Amino acid sequence: MPESSTSPISLDDVLAARERIASFIDPTPLRRYPTLDAAIPGVSLLVKHENLQPTGSFKVRNGLATVTALSSAERARGVVGATTGNHGLGLAFAGRQLGVPVTICVPTGNNPEKNAALRAWGATVIEEGADYDAAVGVAQRLVESEGRTLAHSTNNVNVLAGAGTMTLEIHEQLGDAESLDTLIIAIGGGSQAVGALTVARTLRPDLEVIGVQAAGAPAVHDSWHAREPRTTERASTFSEGVATRSTYPLTFGALLDGLADFVTVTEAEVADAVRTILSTTHHLVEGAGAMGFAAARKLALRLQGKRVGIIFCGANMDTAVLRRILNREL
Amino acid sequence: MPESSTSPISLDDVLAARERIASFIDPTPLRRYPTLDAAIPGVSLLVKHENLQPTGSFKVRNGLATVTALSSAERARGVVGATTGNHGLGLAFAGRQLGVPVTICVPTGNNPEKNAALRAWGATVIEEGADYDAAVGVAQRLVESEGRTLAHSTNNVNVLAGAGTMTLEIHEQLGDAESLDTLIIAIGGGSQAVGALTVARTLRPDLEVIGVQAAGAPAVHDSWHAREPRTTERASTFSEGVATRSTYPLTFGALLDGLADFVTVTEAEVADAVRTILSTTHHLVEGAGAMGFAAARKLALRLQGKRVGIIFCGANMDTAVLRRILNREL
Repeated sequence: MPESSTSPISLDDVLAARERIASFIDPTPLRRYPTLDAAIPGVSLLVKHENLQPTGSFKVRNGLATVTALSSAERARGVVGATTGNHGLGLAFAGRQLGVPVTICVPTGNNPEKNAALRAWGATVIEEGADYDAAVGVAQRLVESEGRTLAHSTNNVNVLAGAGTMTLEIHEQLGDAESLDTLIIAIGGGSQAVGALTVARTLRPDLEVIGVQAAGAPAVHDSWHAREPRTTERASTFSEGVATRSTYPLTFGALLDGLADFVTVTEAEVADAVRTILSTTHHLVEGAGAMGFAAARKLALRLQGKRVGIIFCGANMDTAVLRRILNREL
Repeated sequence: MPESSTSPISLDDVLAARERIASFIDPTPLRRYPTLDAAIPGVSLLVKHENLQPTGSFKVRNGLATVTALSSAERARGVVGATTGNHGLGLAFAGRQLGVPVTICVPTGNNPEKNAALRAWGATVIEEGADYDAAVGVAQRLVESEGRTLAHSTNNVNVLAGAGTMTLEIHEQLGDAESLDTLIIAIGGGSQAVGALTVARTLRPDLEVIGVQAAGAPAVHDSWHAREPRTTERASTFSEGVATRSTYPLTFGALLDGLADFVTVTEAEVADAVRTILSTTHHLVEGAGAMGFAAARKLALRLQGKRVGIIFCGANMDTAVLRRILNREL
């Protein structure tokens, strides 16, 4: 049962999702890096390593939570998802584990390494439409014509519950003795943030959750500050995991209600964060995976003396983009 | 007790090392990547993710196994190690966990990110000498002048036993049902390979272990084929983790006795392997960490139909080197 009028899921939903997905993926590490801390003096960072999920992003939690919740009739007819990659990889991974056919609709010109990975995990890939929101339309067509179940990347309670298992895991890894003051979450559709808010409300009520979005794709950020949904014409960022152009009905209310703040970071700030994370931790993160660190650096004054959780939420950076980042063309 | 005249350690030594280090590090994943498999048709790869150790390399096993074996008097006097980085990071991590002072001698011009990480983990860093073997001389001086215990990166039974815990972990992760035909190990001093041979001899006697070294630093490879120790004047490779110029007394006999084959890979082959691993798995590996894949690709014909284990043994690639690799300057 929802715990407030704005919460689309409850802690029980998250606990149930964790029960369903636990046999398919191991907990990811929660780590400190003295070398990374040195880059933001006065702030103590805890890194949640979702980049180490088998598909390279936290979205495998969402995909598994979605597919494991389907009836056997639904599983037989298969699943269709629209995605720029990570949501689709999560579905593809889940489909392979559970024997469920998965079709993924991606926008034209999508990250080629993500497309290759989708196919390698056994998904059928349909490349059509100008951006993520257009790919959603293509997926909807398949639902109507082929009877497949749409696995929306955000507007799906099982997705939100799956995403919440990450924060549940952080809570348990910290234990009773360890505190966490702030958790910074990159927001595309908002599944990870709503999952975090749901878990924090009950288990860590003092935890402040801050959202971050790309300055070139600020629809949810702008809406949050305006207190009403806004859309943007374009989503212009190399962080394709958060390149959305609108809010989502299932998450926006909870974000409005629960986030302590919502900031944006520029492409240059994200690129610099990718470089710093690489050179200090030697972990490759994609743009969305670097945004927590970029935001923490931006908010360094306000976060002085605090213990701040950041999420390396994905690793699936295209090599061509990485090359541009290392050459300081981004 | 050694199990043959050429084996410096026994399986019991490995089991004892695992017992000592188990509370400090978690097992690393053993994974398949359909995208990586596609790069070597006909060969099924299993990746052991030592790049995900807290210090970014398998050497944390060796450091922990060494420091936990010291007496309290030795711990109080502190440890000194010579290293191009990863062995030192392992010692520094162990020293921080156990409250033991650690001094690390690195060659002049050593990978700056490894130096920064050594200091961030609390080690004192002394940068002196032209290469790894010269840094060993500097460390020896500190042993004599300050009474510190030398933690040699190879000639130390605790190091070898610690390194062996990796193969023990692979054995257990595979379980009784799963087979592994071949394990490819990058060799600098040979700790990881001798550890693997020790574990395999008892627990997986059919497992073939193949060594790989850089063509520009082939001392152990050349010695293995000559059946007697050879030294080289230089160790010319960007894979500094395996940039040795000689064999080591404690490991050479076991390598001679146990390895099924020993090959070299060129700098270009390693650079290409780093790029392929990045673009298919989105894991950053340093040169030594890419050599298993490079060797598997080189030996593809011979490995057809086989299940081959490769080790992403380290992640600590300097960003400047990575940039050159992505720009195809290496």
